[in-house]
Formats: sequence, structure tokens, C-alpha cells
Amino acid sequence: MSEAAISETSDATVETASPGALERVDVHFEPAGRQIRVPSGVMLFDAASWNGIAIDSTCGGHGTCKKCKVRVVDGIVPVSSLDARALSADELRSGWRLACRVALTTPISVEVPPLLTRPKSATAGVGRRVILRPAVQKRYVELSEPSLQDQKTDIERVLAALDDLELRVDLGALRSVATVLRRSDFKVTAVIVDDILIDVEPGDTTDKAYGIAFDLGTTTVVATLLDLTTGAPMAVGSMLNKQQPYGADVITRISSIMINNGGDVLDRLARLAHETLAALVEEVCAEADVDPKNVYEIAVAGNATMSHIAIGVDPEPLGVAPFIMSTRRWPEVLAKDLGVSVHPGARAVLFPSFGAYVGGDITAGLIASGMDRDTRVRLFIDIGTNCEIVLGNSERLIATAAPAGPAFEGASIKCGMRAAAGAIEVVKIAEEDVALGVIGDVAPEGLCGSGLLDAVAELFKVGLLDSSGRFVSDEVANATVPKLADRLRWLEKERIFVLAYKGDEGDLSDAIFLSQRDVRELQFAKAAIATGWSILLEEYGIKPGDLQQVLLAGSFGSYLSPASAIRLGLVPKLPVLRIVSAGNVAGEGAKMALMSVRERALAMTLLEEVDYVELSDRADFNDRFVEQLAFSI
Amino acid sequence: MSEAAISETSDATVETASPGALERVDVHFEPAGRQIRVPSGVMLFDAASWNGIAIDSTCGGHGTCKKCKVRVVDGIVPVSSLDARALSADELRSGWRLACRVALTTPISVEVPPLLTRPKSATAGVGRRVILRPAVQKRYVELSEPSLQDQKTDIERVLAALDDLELRVDLGALRSVATVLRRSDFKVTAVIVDDILIDVEPGDTTDKAYGIAFDLGTTTVVATLLDLTTGAPMAVGSMLNKQQPYGADVITRISSIMINNGGDVLDRLARLAHETLAALVEEVCAEADVDPKNVYEIAVAGNATMSHIAIGVDPEPLGVAPFIMSTRRWPEVLAKDLGVSVHPGARAVLFPSFGAYVGGDITAGLIASGMDRDTRVRLFIDIGTNCEIVLGNSERLIATAAPAGPAFEGASIKCGMRAAAGAIEVVKIAEEDVALGVIGDVAPEGLCGSGLLDAVAELFKVGLLDSSGRFVSDEVANATVPKLADRLRWLEKERIFVLAYKGDEGDLSDAIFLSQRDVRELQFAKAAIATGWSILLEEYGIKPGDLQQVLLAGSFGSYLSPASAIRLGLVPKLPVLRIVSAGNVAGEGAKMALMSVRERALAMTLLEEVDYVELSDRADFNDRFVEQLAFSI
Repeated sequence: MSEAAISETSDATVETASPGALERVDVHFEPAGRQIRVPSGVMLFDAASWNGIAIDSTCGGHGTCKKCKVRVVDGIVPVSSLDARALSADELRSGWRLACRVALTTPISVEVPPLLTRPKSATAGVGRRVILRPAVQKRYVELSEPSLQDQKTDIERVLAALDDLELRVDLGALRSVATVLRRSDFKVTAVIVDDILIDVEPGDTTDKAYGIAFDLGTTTVVATLLDLTTGAPMAVGSMLNKQQPYGADVITRISSIMINNGGDVLDRLARLAHETLAALVEEVCAEADVDPKNVYEIAVAGNATMSHIAIGVDPEPLGVAPFIMSTRRWPEVLAKDLGVSVHPGARAVLFPSFGAYVGGDITAGLIASGMDRDTRVRLFIDIGTNCEIVLGNSERLIATAAPAGPAFEGASIKCGMRAAAGAIEVVKIAEEDVALGVIGDVAPEGLCGSGLLDAVAELFKVGLLDSSGRFVSDEVANATVPKLADRLRWLEKERIFVLAYKGDEGDLSDAIFLSQRDVRELQFAKAAIATGWSILLEEYGIKPGDLQQVLLAGSFGSYLSPASAIRLGLVPKLPVLRIVSAGNVAGEGAKMALMSVRERALAMTLLEEVDYVELSDRADFNDRFVEQLAFSI
Repeated sequence: MSEAAISETSDATVETASPGALERVDVHFEPAGRQIRVPSGVMLFDAASWNGIAIDSTCGGHGTCKKCKVRVVDGIVPVSSLDARALSADELRSGWRLACRVALTTPISVEVPPLLTRPKSATAGVGRRVILRPAVQKRYVELSEPSLQDQKTDIERVLAALDDLELRVDLGALRSVATVLRRSDFKVTAVIVDDILIDVEPGDTTDKAYGIAFDLGTTTVVATLLDLTTGAPMAVGSMLNKQQPYGADVITRISSIMINNGGDVLDRLARLAHETLAALVEEVCAEADVDPKNVYEIAVAGNATMSHIAIGVDPEPLGVAPFIMSTRRWPEVLAKDLGVSVHPGARAVLFPSFGAYVGGDITAGLIASGMDRDTRVRLFIDIGTNCEIVLGNSERLIATAAPAGPAFEGASIKCGMRAAAGAIEVVKIAEEDVALGVIGDVAPEGLCGSGLLDAVAELFKVGLLDSSGRFVSDEVANATVPKLADRLRWLEKERIFVLAYKGDEGDLSDAIFLSQRDVRELQFAKAAIATGWSILLEEYGIKPGDLQQVLLAGSFGSYLSPASAIRLGLVPKLPVLRIVSAGNVAGEGAKMALMSVRERALAMTLLEEVDYVELSDRADFNDRFVEQLAFSI
């Protein structure tokens, strides 16, 4: 294994803090004239590729192609053992080094020669270009046959042909090596994940190397099959998490375990998670006509509760104060530990969690959106029953979780429903009329989160809701928007606004409407979220106007209207173009982890770089929450 | 984990050579006035304990008790971070260091203060005193409960209380930690094997720590349950290897796999090995009233074929030239990988093999007999169908394997049988009479290996066999030993010597005898073995008389008569007191591996220190073999 890889995988060990992770080093690149700042200890090749500065390489920084030559023009960089083999004495004296072997610990300035080749890369995350350097490596080798003069063991023979790597051997590889070598005339492909030889395959199979990235959501699970030789997605599948019968959100799932006092329901929920993942594996492999045995690694981004359950760890302490996880980082996990039948030696990458309510899905999302490397100060909001918020840039990141409640999932809303066919997802209200956008272009069945947000924002805009969130009186309604006033009605002593009649005009029995209590639910959710980011802004010492971008993550974030979010104060009052829907960033982060061990290593070190702000611990939370209930600011 | 432990366990990685393992460093001890020489890199504390020089310690070199102070009086030893914490500036200046933190790389002289405490130790191997330092550690800790101000994860909380160790966390420990902490008021016992936290148990269970040592023989499997807190054996069990129906020796077992072309029979043989181990676990745990869940580690010493099969690795290439193993060293293996139901996270130590025919049982035997540390030049012979021979001392070791054939197992001998009740194990022939020693003091049923050796040696002594191994003529017999001559008879055109009549005197139909062909079988076995050690002596550059001891290992070695062995030339012609029966050294080595990580580390580095001499590759083998067929020298 390369030196760089060693330091990366050692980060994967459970719970070992990497002190000093926040120390930074400046690097200057010529002729680009770029100056960047990176954590101390990062390899020069990685630092360059993270910052979009291309250095020649065909091995992606493995230390095998010896093409990533750069010239150190200022600063001291010792000569590595690989440098001594790859470069002439003259070159070494002139400052030439292999970038993949330079650990950045002091400021340096380097000259990057023009590219001869282009490193393989692929787009992932929020428009990020990722240089391919998967943990999965395949190497085709033709070995000499053993003799009485050469009695090397089979494993020694294979490893001798891979002497640039320092490998551990998986029991599975050991079990098959004798047979495979002899059945294939000693021409085999070594399958390596990280620093582990997981298999030896007959003949040349280097073109078959796949990984599956999972976004393990509480509601929906998404799987992407990746060709790791190109970084290209081959198939995408999604389905509802089979744990659904045990509750819509993490708290009800944890409760169902607590009520049964542990083991039994935990086992059942773990199995259901495994079945969900397994069904998706089957689906994406069938779609792309890929043999699951050629899937050598999976990556799973899930919140802390989903991750705990999938691994079979009791999540109960996550559900009650003081909200304690069993672990932040996961030990070495196999795909089969998650019930996934791919290659039997396949590894699983699980994203680490910052806290009980800022989980691995957020870690993955931050990697995908480059929050840890971008110099712009940005706000990352993942809206759900639990809302995760991260603020900062490459210099500093802080995070919190806000208990938004289930309003946006449609759960506590009278006519609420999940964002599926028939859900009103867009609401436009003019003086004259109500215009609805319905998912699937069918007759409306209910109101999903983005529709709820729109409805409230539009009613506030036209003056049917006041800033305290109360429906105005019939008199005011008639005076302000007379054409809409007849939609403002009473149902069981509660004020409602009718969005659509499914049956006869005026018949409330199956109308779709927004009730006063629905507005209150949304207000609570909005207040929790806004309190969260406002406290973070204060902790960070900036004003909302200083924010250069707001990233709305998660499936809900992708659909809601930035204008409505701004109007209601769900996000800071900023020009609408600064509010960006980031899409399924958790899944993108999982893909990036499969595509690059460097991205994965960053996910592991992120834990050390993000300060977590616990809201439930703050004396001023309630006051701020009440302040945020009102709409107008 | 301590620095020492790191270097030890890294040796356990598969197939990574440790170059320079043969470099030696001199260390002088005062006031004992002892000078020793040890491999470079060894820790001072270990070097001292291996050589019987006691240094104060209650933790056995873990780096926790800080009692192993010694003063460096000559040579340079840098100050370790632990030294700086444990010793005053004055002490450091005066040369005081903690012996468990001193890696020996240059010659030094140290002063050892008088003992305040005595390290725990136990006797094992060939009369060796082993300082207890098992890989299994238990630590009772009382933890503070989490709060909103202290949201450490459960694993972080446990690890923080074990901050002198650098631990990986087993998935099993992770799965139970939340429940165990909360059910036991955060008072728990951490269970550690090597650098892995394998479990967290409620309350204080530090007095319950067991291991099981296995001698996995082709014929017989022996298990010893060890109390790892004292090193005391609690119960011993043995049974026939359940693989017996597939052949008496390794070659027939390998053949049965080859005939069936792999998978099926291999699986069956692996399962039979597992069932044998599992049955013994049940037996020894029941006998000592120990819960198998408190067995945290097992050690298995077996020959290369038995080890390969038990792990599920195809041994076919071991059975045909050029005799290739899949691996010398084994990767991390769990007890459950060997079908053993003890603690689910229990680890298994498998002894590494030098070659296809000098296996892990020999590695274990060498550790037990101290071949690698003794300055006396000794010859180690393990007699069986395959005979393993090792020659040398702490400076240099060479090994070979000789194909002795099944004579000593009684398999190819007319009246041969295994050493069980009814077997003639001792034969004394005087001029007048034949005296027999029978196992179990019952009527004789047949002849086992030691009886065969005795019978031939005695017949040669009294002149009934000539030096070419042929029975003398009746005339010569009558002239030499007239009282025995009537026992020399013909059966189906073959000369035989009757040892006992089971029925009527003179009735050959169920007599127990030695045939001319039996003598030939023994001659072949003896010649193979003697050729083996004579080639080793020549390679080593010494004469038989230079040997200070011959250790006869294995169950056969324990029973045979040194005098007969010398007479027939099975062992070099030496004073009989220099021929020592070493007993079941493989099992003893396995016990030592459980008792001490240092002994285990030595077993791993032994591979680098022993030169293997392949006999089948030597042009002079056949000539020497023919020379050795004769008895008299």
C-alpha cells in the first residue's frame, strides 16, 4: 500500500482522534498562480486534485505510474524512496519530486508541468469533478509456476507481483488462491480493497469492478451501481425503506424497539434494512447486467439511527436525552454484515456521524457539496422531521440539529401526504385564482411538504394569513382578496382554506385544504429550523447577508420553492439565486466515497473539523423559538 | 496498545517478511553479570524475561504498571513518552528507563534493581518458565454517566478509560456496548484480545479469562483449557481426529480430496476437523465447569495439511511436487472460523508453517523446547509418517522433512497397531527369553511403533538380524541364541520372529510376530530419518558428537526407547542421557502462545530464522539413503 493510502485508511479506525487535524499549510502552484490552504499532512497530489489543479497521473496517486512529477521551487521537501527510484540525481537536485509522495507539513511552492495525460475523473456531488482513485483495485498478473527451486507459497507468489502494495490477505482469498492459480495457468487478477487482498480471479478481469452507493433514508433508500473503472453510474434504483411499518420517523422506530425492550424488534428492523438493501442490489445489478460477485465495495450514507440499526446496534440511547451514540466511526464492516450479497469479501463504507441527530447522511452531504473545501461561507440545510444544519467554509464548520417535526413529511397535516403521485407540490395564489402543481399530473390527492410551504407563503403574500400565522377574518378577506374569500371556510370550529374540491364545488367532505392547525405545524417547523441557523450564524459571528449560498439538501430540499422559503423565513432573507437545491447529496457523497479514497478520508476527518452545537442544551432556545414563530421579519 | 505489542502483532500479518530479523544485539545485565544476545528490535523487558532475568512488573510489560525500571549504565537509550511520564528528570538523567519501552538496537549494559514484586509466571513447554502476558486482557472500569455536557459516544467512553491502549473495536462489542453500559450502571469489564476490544461485560468479570490450546494432530487431537489469569491448565481432553475415515496420514487425506476434485471432500474434512475441536471444547469446559463464553482465544498447532484443511484451504498442492502451501502465515482468524463455539469474538492463533512438511506443529514444538533461545546445539526430531527434523541453537536453525512412511504408526506392519491398549510398546530380548511391555497391561494384540523399534533393535543385538536387516539362517540362530531359535519361523515363504502366541503355543494363525518385510519397513523409515539429520549435520558443519541434546518430540517420541533408537541409528550415536523425550511439544507450544504474546511473536519470527533444506531436491539423497539402510555403523 502506498504511504498516502496508509495514512488514509488509518483514519478509518474507530474512534481514534487525529489531533492537529485543523493545522493548515499553504501551497502555491505555478504556472497557475493558485494559492491553496490544506490540512497538514495531506499529500500534494491530493491537495492539487481537490482544488482542481491537474497533475499528470495514470494510477491516480497509487505510486505506481511515477508520472506525477512536480518541481519544488520554494520550500524543503525530502526525497522519498520512490523519488529516488523514479527520478535522476539531476532531477532530484533541481527539486523534482513525485507529488503523490509529498506530505504537506510546511508551506511550499511548486511548479506543475503541462499535462501529458489526463487523470481519469468523473462528475459527482454538487457539480464536483472527482479524480478516480477507488479503494477497489484490480491487477492482472502473470506469475511464474512454482518449482522445487522456487517454493514460494501461493500467497507469497501473488504478493510478490504486487510489491508496491503492502497487503493483508482475506481468508476468502486464501481459501481460493491455490485452485485459481492452477486452473488459470498462474494468470490471475488480484482484487484489492484498501490494503486487503480479497480475492484472486482467473484470467484478466480488470474491466469488471463495481461498487454500490446507498442513501439509506428513513423513508426512501436509493442505490446507485457505479462502474469503478470509469466512475460512471450504471443503474439507479430506489424503494421505500421496508422498516416503514415500524414508524415514519426515527423516533417512532426507536420507540418500537424501546417498548419491546430491545433485541427482538431491533433484530427485525435490522433485517428489514438488510432486505431493502438486498432488493436494491438485485434490481440495479439486473438492470445493468452486472454480476453481483463483481461488486467489491458498497458505501452507505444514513442518519445515525439508520446506521446503528443496519449494523445491529441498539439505537435506544439516541432517542432520549442526553442522546448518546454507540460510536461515531464504524469499525471494519463487510457488505455481508449489512445483509448484502455481492462479492463475499466486499467491504462496506459507513459514513461517520457527528452526533445522534447529525448523522452519516450529513457527513456524506458535506463531502458532496464540498463544504469542507469551499472558501465561500455557506449554509447547508437538510430539512426533514429532524433538520440538520451546517454553516461555514474550508476554514471552519459548525453544525446543529433542529427538531422540525413531521410537518414537511405531511404526517401531522390534515390533508398532508408524502411527495408521491397526486400530491400538490406547487401552489400559486394570485388575487383571482389558485393554481396547483400536482405530482404526476393527476387529480390532487393531498398536500406534500413543498406544497404546504407554498400554500402558507402564498396565503401570507395575498394577505389571508397575518404575520402571527392566523387566518384573517372574513371581513378582512372580503376586503382584500374578494375572489378568494369564499375558499376561507369553517370546518369543525376550525378555519380552513380550500385548495381544491375533489367532488362537488363547495363540498368539504373530500376537499383538499389547509387548516389553521396545519399553519401552526408549519410555523413550529419553520421556527425550529430558523432558530437553528440563526444560532449558528451568531456562533459563527456573521449576519445572514454574509452567506454566499444556502444549500437545501435532501429530497424535500430539492422540491421546495426558494421564494416561498425566503418569504416565510425558513431560510435567511437572501437574493433567491443564492438558495440552491443540492439534491440527494447523501447518495452523491456515498458515490464519491466509492470513487475516491481521498474523499472518503475527508469524510472521516470531517468529524474532527466540525463543531457541534447542541440546541437542547441552550438556555435561549425557547425565547428564540418564539421569536421565530412569526412570518414577517 | 503498547509499542511492544504493536511490533508483535504486526508480525502476525500474513506473509510480510521482516528483513534483518537475524541481526543480533548484545545486552549486559548487572548485578547478575549476564551477557545475552537477542534479535535487534526486541524490547529489553522481553529479552530479560526470555533469559530468566526477572525485572519488576505487575502488568507483564503492557506499559501500565510503570514498575519495570532499569538503569542504563552503558549505551544510549532515548527517553520514551512513557518514561517521561513515569520517571523524574533526575532519574531520566541518571539513565533510568522503563524496560518495556526500550527497543534493543545497539549494545547496552543495564542495571536491574532488586525485585519488589514477582511477575506472574507458569511452567510450560520443556520445563520452561513463561511470564504471563496473554493477548487476552480484562479491565474492570467504572465510567461516569453521559450528560448533555458530556456526549461522548459509548465506545469513546469505554476507550477513554483504557487510554494506555490503542484499540480497534469489534463489531460484536459495538453491538452490545449501549445495552451493557446501561444495565450495569456503567461499571463494566472490557475484554481485549491483542489490540481489539471484543466485548464489554457487565460488572467485574476479570477473574474469568480462559483460552484453549489445541494440538491438531492427523491422528489425535488434544485440547487444554487454560486459566489465563494464572496460566494453570484446568482440563485436558483428547480424541481421535474425526477425519480418520479419510485416511491415516496426510497424504491419503489429500488424495481423497484430489480424487473428488476439490470442494466437496475438502468441505467435509474441514467440517470433521471443526467437529473434533468443538467436541473437545465441550468436554474440557464441562470438566472444569467453565462457561465457553469466557474462552476468548484459542491456539492451534497442526501440521501444514491439518492447518490448511481446518481453515478450508485446499491442501492439494502440498501433496505433490513441488509441495506448495497456500500460505506460511495465517491471516486474522476467529475461533468461529474453525467451527469452535466459544466467545463469538474469540480469536484463533494458528502456528505458521516453514514448509509443506514442516508445519505449525513444529513451530509450536520449537517454541516449547526453546530451540530458538538455547545456546546448546540440539537436534529436534518429530517422528511420524512424515518426520520433521530441526537442528541448531539460538544462533542458527536449519530444518528438513524426511518421508519416514507409516511404519511407526503401525500401518504397514503385519501385526502393527496404533499405540493403544493391547499394543506391545516395549520389547526386551535376552538370550533366554522375550519380555514384552503391553499398553494397559492386557494380553498383547499387536505391535506399536516403539515396540517395533525395540523388537528390531533387540533382535539385532542378540544376533538374529544381521546388519543388512536380514534374519539370520536357522543354523546361525541355533548356534547363537538356541533358546530363541524356535521363534524364528516361516510364514507364507517369509521369515518371521514370533513375539507372542495368542492361542496355542506354536499356532501361527493369531500369533504376534515381526516379519522380514516389517524389518524392511523399519529400515526404510530409519534410513529416511537418519539421512535427514545427517544432511542437516553436514549443512551445519558439525559432527554427531557435537550435539548436546536430541529432543524426540510427538507422541511416538515420548514412548520409544532411546537405547533402541541409538542402537539402530535412528538417532546419532550419543550417550543415552543426551536423548530426551520432549513429549507433546506442539500442544505445549500452543499453551505458551496463549500465555504470552511474546512467545507467540517468536513463533511468527521463527519463520525468518529457520533455513529449510529440501531433501527431494538433493542429488545425493538416494546414495545417502542406501548407506543408512544398514544398522551397524
